[in-house]
This record gives sequence, structure tokens and C-alpha cells, in this order.
Amino acid sequence: MSGVAGSAGSPIEFYFDPISPYGYIASTQVEAIAARYGRKVDWKPVLLGITVMKVMGLPPLPQTPLKKDYVARDVPRMARLVGVPLVMHGLKGINSLAACRAFLWLKAKDPVLASRFAARICARLWVEGKDITAASVVADEAAALGADRGAVLAAAESTEMKDALKAEVEAAIAKGVFGVPTFIVDGEPIWGVDRLWMLEHWLEHGDWEPHRQVL
Amino acid sequence: MSGVAGSAGSPIEFYFDPISPYGYIASTQVEAIAARYGRKVDWKPVLLGITVMKVMGLPPLPQTPLKKDYVARDVPRMARLVGVPLVMHGLKGINSLAACRAFLWLKAKDPVLASRFAARICARLWVEGKDITAASVVADEAAALGADRGAVLAAAESTEMKDALKAEVEAAIAKGVFGVPTFIVDGEPIWGVDRLWMLEHWLEHGDWEPHRQVL
Repeated sequence: MSGVAGSAGSPIEFYFDPISPYGYIASTQVEAIAARYGRKVDWKPVLLGITVMKVMGLPPLPQTPLKKDYVARDVPRMARLVGVPLVMHGLKGINSLAACRAFLWLKAKDPVLASRFAARICARLWVEGKDITAASVVADEAAALGADRGAVLAAAESTEMKDALKAEVEAAIAKGVFGVPTFIVDGEPIWGVDRLWMLEHWLEHGDWEPHRQVL
Repeated sequence: MSGVAGSAGSPIEFYFDPISPYGYIASTQVEAIAARYGRKVDWKPVLLGITVMKVMGLPPLPQTPLKKDYVARDVPRMARLVGVPLVMHGLKGINSLAACRAFLWLKAKDPVLASRFAARICARLWVEGKDITAASVVADEAAALGADRGAVLAAAESTEMKDALKAEVEAAIAKGVFGVPTFIVDGEPIWGVDRLWMLEHWLEHGDWEPHRQVL
């Protein structure tokens, strides 16, 4: 396996959930990183409410003692380090179900538009500090990118897209995905926005040898 | 605040638990990193059995669905990336209580010897694949560094050191420490061996500005 720049490597699977601030930060970087190494990005939605709470049996981060305080402090500094805007958000009552269903519908038609939509939804929540829960809001954001608002609105609430999202999350879990962001590149899972250096290491070298001081 | 190389900055607090493979990997790097920036390292034991299980209410990593598989795959590649030997270990029945108590006793006498002892205990478990639970084994390792074997053996089982370790873990929790490795530098908590780059960023710049492409 080789990740040499310019080679026609397989796409980087990028697992995101707009509910995650770390996922938002990653969403601002992943396309540029992939482009540097001649890779495409396959954006894949996953639901932390399923992976973390139901499968792993853990509380959500904002309810985990100690870690919640660390994350509240860490998210803003990580955004600053990466150089992107971010506002903190309580996330109360917010979920990403409609957004993820609309994403899958858009992806089937136009994956590039869908990834732009996903990034836009992340930014709506983490830059503008606005709710992303309602299907109407999700449809507005898609329409702003040129999608058919009525069709997106219907898709976000359709049984077909509910089932599609369930299948997508199950497929992610079957691949071992639990957190956001997770990248899978050439079969290697890499979890965490704090590991973008590790993603780049793989893309550059295609192995885990210490070619240089990487840490 | 400034972390400019050569300045007499405050020590880097390095929270370790020999039970953690990521802590072991960090233990092989932290002194060299600190030295590059003219800092000392203050090694501080913490017990994941208390922070993770009792305070956070989470299962141990080897019992967490999905994450346990990720970690089993990740630990060897992280050791390889850093360029240090590592053998995987089931950890069944192993605990670091005696080792941490002995460490605190040694630290009160000779902090440098104590940190060498801690690194040696980590290596015993994660390089040699040998148990570290028994006070007799802990005393052997300390004696190999020149410490008084009988005194270490007594200390590892003394009420005084049991209380000292409890106080140490409580102090760590009060500072928000929950995982291993955690570094606290100039009041900034940094969790995870995958964030050594972030530790270095702070040591070099003393801020979280994106001075260069850091991720």
C-alpha cells in the first residue's frame, strides 16, 4: 500500500456527525488534506447517539464528569490552533437526524454537493450557533446550495432515508467506527481531530514507520 | 505566558498510570521533549481505576465495545510510530497500586530516581510483558536502581503511602485529570499521547495560535 501524492489512492472515508464540534473542525480540513495527496473524501454520516450511547453504553460527552470540562476547554483552543471560527453550544434538544437523512439523499444525487451541504450544516451549528434539528432548516441550507428545497424536506422525513441512515450507521459500527471524526484510509481507522497529523503520515508514507519526528 | 526554549519555565506535570499502554509510550518521550524546551518533568501517578471507573462511571477500555478493538489496533502502531518496543497485554488481574505507592515514597527522597523507576515499571509491563502487581516485584525493580529493597517493600504496603496515593489521585481529579497520559503545562491540560505535538506547540509558542500547520 502506498499513499504517495498524486497516486489514484482510494477515497478517505470521513465519518462525521454535525453534532460534534471536533467533527466540525475536521470538516474544515479534510478536503484540503486529501487534495494534497491526490485523494478524494467519502463523507459518511454517523450518529453519536447510537454509537456512543447505545452500542458503547456511555453517556454523551456533555454529561461525562471531568471529560466534559476538558472538552469545553479543549474545543475552542483546537479551533484556534486550526485557525477556524467556532462558538460553543449547549446542544440541548439538538439532533442531527434530519440533516444526516438529507445528506444521504443529496449524496445519492451529487456527492460533492452533499459534502458541501454537510460542511454547511456543521458551520451552521458551530460557527453561527444556530439549531440544525428541524427538517425545514436543513432544507433551507440545502436550497441555499441549489438543491430542490421541497424534495430535500420530503427526503429528510421519509421512511426511505430513515432506513438509509440506519443502514449507514450500522455499516459504520460494523467497521468499528464509534467517535467523530473518524477517518478510514486504506483500511486504517484514525479517530480524533487531534490525529490529523497521523492521517497525513499515512497519506505521505503508507505505513506507520517513524520516518521523522511525527509526534 | 511564554514557553520559549531555555527559559526557566515551570515543570511539566506528567500524569501516568503504568497500567496504560499510552502512558508507557508517553513515558519514553516526555523527558526528551521537556529537555528540548528547558523544562523539568514532574511525574505524578494517577489511578485509571479511580478516575475512569469511579469518578467518570465508565467501564475500563478493555471492556468498552468498539473502542477496545480500536485501541488494540492503535497501541502497537502508535508505539511503532514513536519507535519504541511494545508487547500487548491482557492486563487481567494486574494493578499498579503497589508501584504507585512505591513511586511516591521514592519521589519524596529522590524525584529523578523515582521517575526512572516509574519508566522502568511501565517498561516491565509493556516491553517485557511481565506483571507489576506484587509489592515484591515493585521492590525488585526499585532495588535494581539502587533503592533500599526492604524499605521500598514496606513503603509499598504502608498505610502512609496508601493515604499518600489517595491524596495524590484526589489532587489529580481536582485538577480535572481523568486519562493517561495527561500533561499539564502552565495550567494547560493536554490529554493523550496523540497530542505530544500539542504539548510541543505550547512549549515552543506558549499560546494556541496557528503559527504553522500544526495538525
